[in-house]
Amino acid sequence: MTYTAPVDDMRFVLEHLVGYDRLAALPGYEDVSDELVGAVLDEAAKFAGGVLAPLNVNGDRQGSKLENGVVRTPDGWRDAYKQFVAGGWNAVPFPVEFGGQGLPWTVQATLAEMWQAASLSFGLCPMLSQGAVEALLVHGSDEQKRIYLPKLIEGTWTGTMNLTEPQAGSDLGAVRTKAERNGDGTYRLYGQKIFITYGEHDLAENIIHMVLARTPDAPAGVKGISLFIAPKFLVQSDGSIGARNDLRCVSLEHKMGIHASPTAVMAYGDNDGALAYLVGEEGRGLEYMFTMMNNARLSVGLQGVAIAERAYQQARAYALQRVQGKGLNGKNAGPVAIIEHPDVRRMLVTMRAMTEASRALAIRAFAAFDGAHTTHDAACQAEVDFLTPIVKAWSTDIGVEVASLGVQVHGGMGFIEETGAAQHYRDARILPIYEGTNGIQANDLAFRKIVRDDGRAFAAWLASARNDVAALGALPGDDMSAIRDRVGEGLDLAERATAWMIATGKTDVWAASAGAVHYLRAIGLVAGGVEMARAAAAAARGLAQGSNAFLQRKLLTSRFFAEQLVPQAQSLYGPMSSAHTTLRAFETDAV
Amino acid sequence: MTYTAPVDDMRFVLEHLVGYDRLAALPGYEDVSDELVGAVLDEAAKFAGGVLAPLNVNGDRQGSKLENGVVRTPDGWRDAYKQFVAGGWNAVPFPVEFGGQGLPWTVQATLAEMWQAASLSFGLCPMLSQGAVEALLVHGSDEQKRIYLPKLIEGTWTGTMNLTEPQAGSDLGAVRTKAERNGDGTYRLYGQKIFITYGEHDLAENIIHMVLARTPDAPAGVKGISLFIAPKFLVQSDGSIGARNDLRCVSLEHKMGIHASPTAVMAYGDNDGALAYLVGEEGRGLEYMFTMMNNARLSVGLQGVAIAERAYQQARAYALQRVQGKGLNGKNAGPVAIIEHPDVRRMLVTMRAMTEASRALAIRAFAAFDGAHTTHDAACQAEVDFLTPIVKAWSTDIGVEVASLGVQVHGGMGFIEETGAAQHYRDARILPIYEGTNGIQANDLAFRKIVRDDGRAFAAWLASARNDVAALGALPGDDMSAIRDRVGEGLDLAERATAWMIATGKTDVWAASAGAVHYLRAIGLVAGGVEMARAAAAAARGLAQGSNAFLQRKLLTSRFFAEQLVPQAQSLYGPMSSAHTTLRAFETDAV
Repeated sequence: MTYTAPVDDMRFVLEHLVGYDRLAALPGYEDVSDELVGAVLDEAAKFAGGVLAPLNVNGDRQGSKLENGVVRTPDGWRDAYKQFVAGGWNAVPFPVEFGGQGLPWTVQATLAEMWQAASLSFGLCPMLSQGAVEALLVHGSDEQKRIYLPKLIEGTWTGTMNLTEPQAGSDLGAVRTKAERNGDGTYRLYGQKIFITYGEHDLAENIIHMVLARTPDAPAGVKGISLFIAPKFLVQSDGSIGARNDLRCVSLEHKMGIHASPTAVMAYGDNDGALAYLVGEEGRGLEYMFTMMNNARLSVGLQGVAIAERAYQQARAYALQRVQGKGLNGKNAGPVAIIEHPDVRRMLVTMRAMTEASRALAIRAFAAFDGAHTTHDAACQAEVDFLTPIVKAWSTDIGVEVASLGVQVHGGMGFIEETGAAQHYRDARILPIYEGTNGIQANDLAFRKIVRDDGRAFAAWLASARNDVAALGALPGDDMSAIRDRVGEGLDLAERATAWMIATGKTDVWAASAGAVHYLRAIGLVAGGVEMARAAAAAARGLAQGSNAFLQRKLLTSRFFAEQLVPQAQSLYGPMSSAHTTLRAFETDAV
Repeated sequence: MTYTAPVDDMRFVLEHLVGYDRLAALPGYEDVSDELVGAVLDEAAKFAGGVLAPLNVNGDRQGSKLENGVVRTPDGWRDAYKQFVAGGWNAVPFPVEFGGQGLPWTVQATLAEMWQAASLSFGLCPMLSQGAVEALLVHGSDEQKRIYLPKLIEGTWTGTMNLTEPQAGSDLGAVRTKAERNGDGTYRLYGQKIFITYGEHDLAENIIHMVLARTPDAPAGVKGISLFIAPKFLVQSDGSIGARNDLRCVSLEHKMGIHASPTAVMAYGDNDGALAYLVGEEGRGLEYMFTMMNNARLSVGLQGVAIAERAYQQARAYALQRVQGKGLNGKNAGPVAIIEHPDVRRMLVTMRAMTEASRALAIRAFAAFDGAHTTHDAACQAEVDFLTPIVKAWSTDIGVEVASLGVQVHGGMGFIEETGAAQHYRDARILPIYEGTNGIQANDLAFRKIVRDDGRAFAAWLASARNDVAALGALPGDDMSAIRDRVGEGLDLAERATAWMIATGKTDVWAASAGAVHYLRAIGLVAGGVEMARAAAAAARGLAQGSNAFLQRKLLTSRFFAEQLVPQAQSLYGPMSSAHTTLRAFETDAV
C-alpha cells in the first residue's frame, strides 16, 4: 500500500504535451524549466510517498473525531501537516508578494495530484485553503489580503468554503444564512452550513471561513447572496490572533469514505452572531464563489486522476505477487502471477490508460488556466472554461471506475478492508458528487460552454485536435495508424454530437439536458484520446532517437486507449439524442 | 429505507415471459398457477418488507461478531431467521419427500430476490444452505439424505460451502486441506478454509459444512479433490445432535460490506481431526461442487438484481421528496422535486430498466433450469448452461452500477452512511467477485459455453430471439419499431461477436480470453434487450385490451432499454477483438 508518484509521466506531460517553452513564455513564469520542475517534483514525490501515503490507511480507520467541540485529526496528521507547511508545499502557486513561490498552476497540478493520491483526506485541507486564497486574491480588499493571505498561503491558517445548507445543495440561490450589518462595515452571521470540509480541525492556528450569506434587504435568489470572511479566531490589526468568533462545529458527518477529512456541520451565530467581513460588494457572492469554484473543479478532477493512480499502483502490486491459476501462453505451464492472465492485464492497462489520459487532459486544462490567468488571453480562457466540466466529471467518473477495477483485480481480497483497495473505492465515490455533481457539470458543459458560446470553444479545440491527429500520419507503424483511425472517428463523433447539442440546446432545453451526461462522457473519451494521441506522437519521436521503456509503454498505452476506450463514444450518440423521447413520456410516478 | 417487493413485475415475468402453462407442464409442477404463485409472492413480500428489510441497516452497523468462539448475529437476526423457518420459506424449491414445498426454482427465484433485496446479508444464509441441499440431493447417499436433508430443508440446520484456501482462490486445484481415512469409511479433515459465508453463527442448531479436501494418496490437481460433509455438531443415528466436531471459526473478515453476514476463517482438525463423511466417490469433489455452483451462480446473479431493485427504490423515494432547483419544463417555474430534472430521471429509469431486464433474464435462466432439472431436456440444459455465466456476471455488474447511480441520485447525502444508499454500494461490490469472479464467468462463457459447443446453444437462443424480435413487427407504434430496430441491431452484433469468439477461441486462446469480458457484456446487453422486447410485446397485447399504468410503463421502459442500453454492445466489438494486440505486446513489468 505504498505510493510512488508517477514523476516520469508527469514530466513527460509537462515537457511534451504542455511544453516548458510555453509556460516560460507566460509573465512571471520565466524561470520555469525542466530542471527546476524536475527537482520540485522529486522532492514532492519523496514527501508524498514517504510522509503522507503511510498515513492514509490509519486515517481511514481512525477518522477525524469531534470531542467537546474540538476536532481531532488522526494520529500523525498534525505532524505531517506541519512538515507540509515547513516544506513550503502550501505556497507553490501563489504570488511571491504574499509569500508564495510563484510557480505555474500547471506545475502545482502535478503536486496536487501527488498529495491527493497519497491521501485524498489529507489533500482536501490545502485544496480548500487554495480556494479561499484565490477568492481573496481576486476579490479581497488590500487590507483583507494583507491580513489573511500570508498566513493562508503559508498554511499556518487554513480556509474553507461554506456554501451548502440543508435546503440549498446544488441550488445556492436557496441559501438562508443571514448577514446583519453592524453599522461599522462589519456583519454578523446567523445560520447553519453543512458539508464543510475541514470546517473544524486541529492542524492550524486559525481557520478562515468563506461564507455565503444573505443581507437583510437583499433580493430573493442568487442576486441576494454575498460572500463573507468569518475567521474562527478574530484577527487583530497587528495580525495576531484574538477572541474566538461565534461559530462552531456542531457535528461531523459519518461518511462512506475520506474518513480523516472532517466534514462539518457549522453553526454561525448561536450567541451574538459570528463577526464577518464582506468580500467585494454585496450581492455578488455567488459570482465570487465561482471564481474559486472553477479552479476547485479542476482540482477535484485531479483528485479523480489521483485516486485512479493510487488504485492502479495497489492493484498492480497485488497482481504481480499473487500467484493463481495457470498461464495461457504455453511457455508457463505452472501457476503464474495473475498479472499474466489476459483479463487481469486488461483491467490493469485499462486503469493505467484511463489514469494517464485523464492526467494529460487535466494538466492541459491547468496550462490553459495559467495562460488565461497571467495574460487574460481569451482563447486560453475559452479553453479552460470548456475543459473544466469535462475534467471535473470525466476524471472523477474515471476515479470511481478505476478504483472499482482495482477491487476486482484483487478478487476476494479486494472486499477485505485490510487490503486497502476497498478504501480507494469508498473514498473515490464522493468525487462525482461534490463541487457540483457530474450531472451539473454536464449541464454546465452543454449550456454554458457549448450552446451559449455557439460551439466556438469546442471548434477551436477540435481544429487543434484535428491537426494533432493528422500529424500522426507522418509517423510509421500499426500503432500510429490505429490511433489515428480510432481518435479520428472519435473526433467525427464529437463534432456530430456537438452539432446536435447546439441545435437541440437552442430549441429544446429538456432534451439537451437529458442527453448532457452522455455528451460529456463522449467528449471526455475523445479528448482523452486526443491527449494520448499527442503523447504517442511525442513517444514515437523519442523512440526514433533510441529505445526507451517508458516511451514504448506510452505508445502502446496510447493505442490501447484509442482502441479500447475511445470507441465507447460512438455508442453514446444514439442514447444522447434519444433519451428525452422516453424520459419525457413517463408520468412522474412511473419513473 | 423501506422495501416493497416488485410483485407486479415478478408476476408479469412469470406469466408473460415464462408462462405458467410451461411451468405446469413440467413433472411435479402441475399445480403451479398464477393464483397459487400470486398468493405465495404476496406473503413473501410481506415478510421481506415487514420483517427482513427493517433489519438491514442495523445489520450493517452492528455486524456479526466473533466473541469467545461464538459468532453473534446482529439484534433481531435470530428472531427473523426463526420466522423465516416457521414460514416455510427455506423449503420452497425442495422435494416434498424431504419436507420441501416442491415449487419450481423459477418461483423460488422471485422469492430469493425478495430476501436478497431486503437484506443481502440475511439472504446469504439460506442461499448457502440451498447449495448444500442441492449437493446432497444429487450426490448424497440415501443415508446422508435421510440424516441431513429434512433439517437443512426446514432450515433448523444451515449449510456452507468450504472451497477457498489462502493459496487456492479461483484455482481450486490448489486445495491442500487433508482428508485422512479412519478405516471405518469416515474421514478426518485437517486444514484451513477462508471466506466461508455463515461458517459460524447463532441462527441454527447445527451447521453442515460441505468441504473440499484431498485424500492422502490422491493425484495432484483437481482430480485429487473429494467432497465431504463435516457437521459442526455430529449427528447421532436417531438424528439428534451429538458431540462438537473438531472444527472452529478462527476469525471473521473485516469487509467493506455485507457486515451482518459472517465471513469465517475455519480451522479443521486443530486437535484430533474433524470427523467427516465422503459424498459420492473420492476424487470427484470438484465435479460435485459444480453441481451446486451453477445454481449458486444464478443465485448470485439474482443478488445483483435484488440490490439494484433496492437501490432503485431508495433513490426514487429520495428523488420524489428532495426539492431542489427549478423545473425545465416551463410549467413549473418554482423549485421542483429532483425527480423532475432530466438527468435524475435518466439515472432512475436507467436503474429500473437495468433491474427489470436483468430480472427477466435471470428468471428465464431459472425456467430453463427447471426444464433441465425435471425432464433432463437437452435444450433446456444447453440454455441454462449458456445463460448462467451471463446472469452471474452481467447482473452483478448491474448491481454495482445501479447502486452507484443510487448514490449519485442522492447527491451529497448519498455519501453519508445514515442515508442508506452507501450501504447498497458497499454491499453490492462483492457480487462481481464471489462465486467465480466475473472475469472467470467470461472465460466460462467464451470457452465452455461457446467455443467448446461450437456456438450451438447460442445459435438456439439467437433463433428464438430473432423470432421474438420479428414478432414485434406485427405491433404498431414508434415504441415498437424503435425496440425492433435497436434490439435487431444488437442481435446482429451478438452474432458477429460470437462468430469472432468461436473462430478466435479455437486458434488463439489468449486473444479470446482478452476479449471475453467485453464479449459477455455485449451478450448480456443484447439478451437483456431481447427480454425487454418480449416484455414490450406482452405489454402491447395487454394495452390493446385497455389502459394499464403498469403495462404502459413497461412498454416505455423496454424502449428506453433498447435505445439507451443495447447500443453499448455495438461499441464492444472493436475492443473485444483488438484487446490482445496491445495487451500481449506489453512486457510484464510494463503492465
